[in-house]
Amino acid sequence: MAKGASISGFPEWLPSQRVVEQTVIDKLRKVFELNGFIGIETRAVEQGVSLLKKGETSKEIYLLSRLQEVGHESDTPIEDRLGLHFDLTVPLSRYVVEHSGDLVFPFKRWQMQKVWRGERPQEGRFREFVQADIDVIGNGDLPDHYEVELPLVMVAGLEELRDLGLPKATVHANNRKLSEGFYRGLGLEDIEGVLREIDKLDKIGADEVAKLLVKDCGANESQAHACLELAQLTAADGGELLERFDDLCAKHGVRQESDAYQLARQGLDTLAMIVDQAAQIRPGSVVADLKIARGLDYYTGSVYETFLEGAEGLGSICSGGRYDNLASQGNKRYPGVGLSIGLSRLVSYILHTAGAQASRVSPASVLVAVWDEADRATSNAIANALRARGIAADVAPTAAKLGKQIKYADKLGIPYVWFPPQVGQEGDQVKNIISGDQTPADAKSWEPDRLYARQTVRV
Amino acid sequence: MAKGASISGFPEWLPSQRVVEQTVIDKLRKVFELNGFIGIETRAVEQGVSLLKKGETSKEIYLLSRLQEVGHESDTPIEDRLGLHFDLTVPLSRYVVEHSGDLVFPFKRWQMQKVWRGERPQEGRFREFVQADIDVIGNGDLPDHYEVELPLVMVAGLEELRDLGLPKATVHANNRKLSEGFYRGLGLEDIEGVLREIDKLDKIGADEVAKLLVKDCGANESQAHACLELAQLTAADGGELLERFDDLCAKHGVRQESDAYQLARQGLDTLAMIVDQAAQIRPGSVVADLKIARGLDYYTGSVYETFLEGAEGLGSICSGGRYDNLASQGNKRYPGVGLSIGLSRLVSYILHTAGAQASRVSPASVLVAVWDEADRATSNAIANALRARGIAADVAPTAAKLGKQIKYADKLGIPYVWFPPQVGQEGDQVKNIISGDQTPADAKSWEPDRLYARQTVRV
Repeated sequence: MAKGASISGFPEWLPSQRVVEQTVIDKLRKVFELNGFIGIETRAVEQGVSLLKKGETSKEIYLLSRLQEVGHESDTPIEDRLGLHFDLTVPLSRYVVEHSGDLVFPFKRWQMQKVWRGERPQEGRFREFVQADIDVIGNGDLPDHYEVELPLVMVAGLEELRDLGLPKATVHANNRKLSEGFYRGLGLEDIEGVLREIDKLDKIGADEVAKLLVKDCGANESQAHACLELAQLTAADGGELLERFDDLCAKHGVRQESDAYQLARQGLDTLAMIVDQAAQIRPGSVVADLKIARGLDYYTGSVYETFLEGAEGLGSICSGGRYDNLASQGNKRYPGVGLSIGLSRLVSYILHTAGAQASRVSPASVLVAVWDEADRATSNAIANALRARGIAADVAPTAAKLGKQIKYADKLGIPYVWFPPQVGQEGDQVKNIISGDQTPADAKSWEPDRLYARQTVRV
Repeated sequence: MAKGASISGFPEWLPSQRVVEQTVIDKLRKVFELNGFIGIETRAVEQGVSLLKKGETSKEIYLLSRLQEVGHESDTPIEDRLGLHFDLTVPLSRYVVEHSGDLVFPFKRWQMQKVWRGERPQEGRFREFVQADIDVIGNGDLPDHYEVELPLVMVAGLEELRDLGLPKATVHANNRKLSEGFYRGLGLEDIEGVLREIDKLDKIGADEVAKLLVKDCGANESQAHACLELAQLTAADGGELLERFDDLCAKHGVRQESDAYQLARQGLDTLAMIVDQAAQIRPGSVVADLKIARGLDYYTGSVYETFLEGAEGLGSICSGGRYDNLASQGNKRYPGVGLSIGLSRLVSYILHTAGAQASRVSPASVLVAVWDEADRATSNAIANALRARGIAADVAPTAAKLGKQIKYADKLGIPYVWFPPQVGQEGDQVKNIISGDQTPADAKSWEPDRLYARQTVRV
């Protein structure tokens, strides 16, 4: 094989870094399962027609072709070709429709898999990364209590990552109906356009957004100003949120009996419920933030973004929302609500900014030394006796000088080196090469100190 | 989204089946880690040049193209395009070369990931599946004791799957040098060709193989017969193996002082060591089987295939070997030995032939009932108290009639339904809906019966 070469956007972790990623995955899985979410995996590919839904051909998708088809790829329309999934929501929708007869609804599922974005190589952008998703999908309808429970499960998951150095996470919630109703009440029609510009608020500031609203979205100065006022509205609880929103509507002439206000009010009530209930269960975990817009057009109600205290520049690390129209079959609808963690970016933060490190590279607690290649069977038997009791053990690769064997353990971070009996020595001995302590030991009963028993991650 | 459609060759498990797959993965990971193997993940893609090594363009590979490049795919030579990996050995070789400065050698790694084969759709062939691999890679050299240890770790892993209904697994070992040396000693030159035909022995029988050896590999009748005699040679231990091999050489005029015999003898000694040592550590786990050839041309010494008792028709479920020339950089070589389980096929067997089933679909032990939507907070608090003590809990989706809530638990296989306090009832109650037992309970101290504590897999 030729010399290896890294490919921009396809990150790979070194073994010690992979320990951190695996720990993140294991911790999240535990929280998801404690909350009754069911784990699934979907195939990595979807039909082009699913990936290109609504003709969004600007999507960054990788299409596949068989080696034997090279040069004839264009014979197959894109809709019929296979492509790699770019998220886990589109596959979930397809999975639910395909297997609806075999699922119990509401279907609560967790899923952690790689996704791919067929982007041009560019600094800091991943083209392959892991997402960690939870969603609940209803059959026909879906109670709105899930719109507060799901962000709370994600917060519980992120909270488990605090001891890996992750700062406190806060979910910022908004509601598409709230924004849309208010914009319509103002007389605006390009709702998608306004949401798109409002989404830029943190990046380019209020003045620039106001200019874009006027220039590109058909707003006058006063309408643009009202949109910005809504985006910047804050409140301590649901009651205050309603009060301030009504003040804003009165100020800008959005009448309470209008359809637009009713739509906004529907969204507002859900949002008020979310922040009030979240405050009861886990204070400070979910706040209303009326500038959250989310670019993806499939959200129809609640939308969420999640920011880390002191790392807001990282952007949202966990986003999602409610989607009522993503999955359907005939006249059956499968509304859902879910959130997705960009796990690879989070692991990158934990490694490179928080400075988390694996306590050791090897899962083994013990390296069994080998005095002589002819005696390797003795060392293997000791290792197997330890393994049978759940203690991970490795055996020295060669009967090299003892110093070299200890160095091998040290490089892998293995805390104990086990010395099989040898001439002039009574029984086995085990040495903690970190503390230097050496004691007699029996492979049938010896236990490592708790501190060294397991591979862990430390900050 | 349009109606979902399954894609031939891209299997997906239902939630209850995924529990079985996840259990297989968890059990194997545990064994690999107990044995000191380090987990890594590699990116899903490799450069075309790596995938097409040695110009084997017959390989079944999926190449990628960005959506924006459709119609211009051919502008980029295949060597420079990205493709999905078709195994985990080629990526490992690349990873080791790329990160050699950061790894500790010998590098023992486990890896479980999806791989893809760009085949035409055909019955019973997976185009996407999970492989579970262990390999040890040396820097410059690699002691041959790993050639007996690695198959034994795989046997230990497969042994853990016995309680999921997997039959006893036996590794069949051979050695490329042994076969090649003997064939050369007979005067044959098309070694690859002979190996390829011998590999068909179980499928088409000795007579057909003999014909093919004569027709396609330049053998005369006597040489063809000798090749078949070698393939069918059996022995109880290493000593007997050597004796019978020497008899065969004498019979067919392969002289002991020849280079060909010396090469064969090198392979034979390794094979004898493997079967003798394996017999000591785990009798019956590894046998010599001189017809094992392995199609992949990168093996240079030991080769392994693994068969299940009573399910030989399934073919080899775990294969591998020693490869001395797969990875190199300048004049540095990284010899390796490893085995790979075709995990998806194994899970398919466990599900469909052995009939293994998840004890329940949901990871939750308990469903907390909801008497009234206004009291959902009470039910949530009970569920959270259970979760805080590591007991997985779900909460009823709606405050439906109790019978409907119990039915929801039943469909998900959740064994307990928890009744929060209600008017006229003192305290909480919990009901085992399988046994019918109902008792008072406190969410701060209650524990499920051991039998129902965890999601398990039963045959």
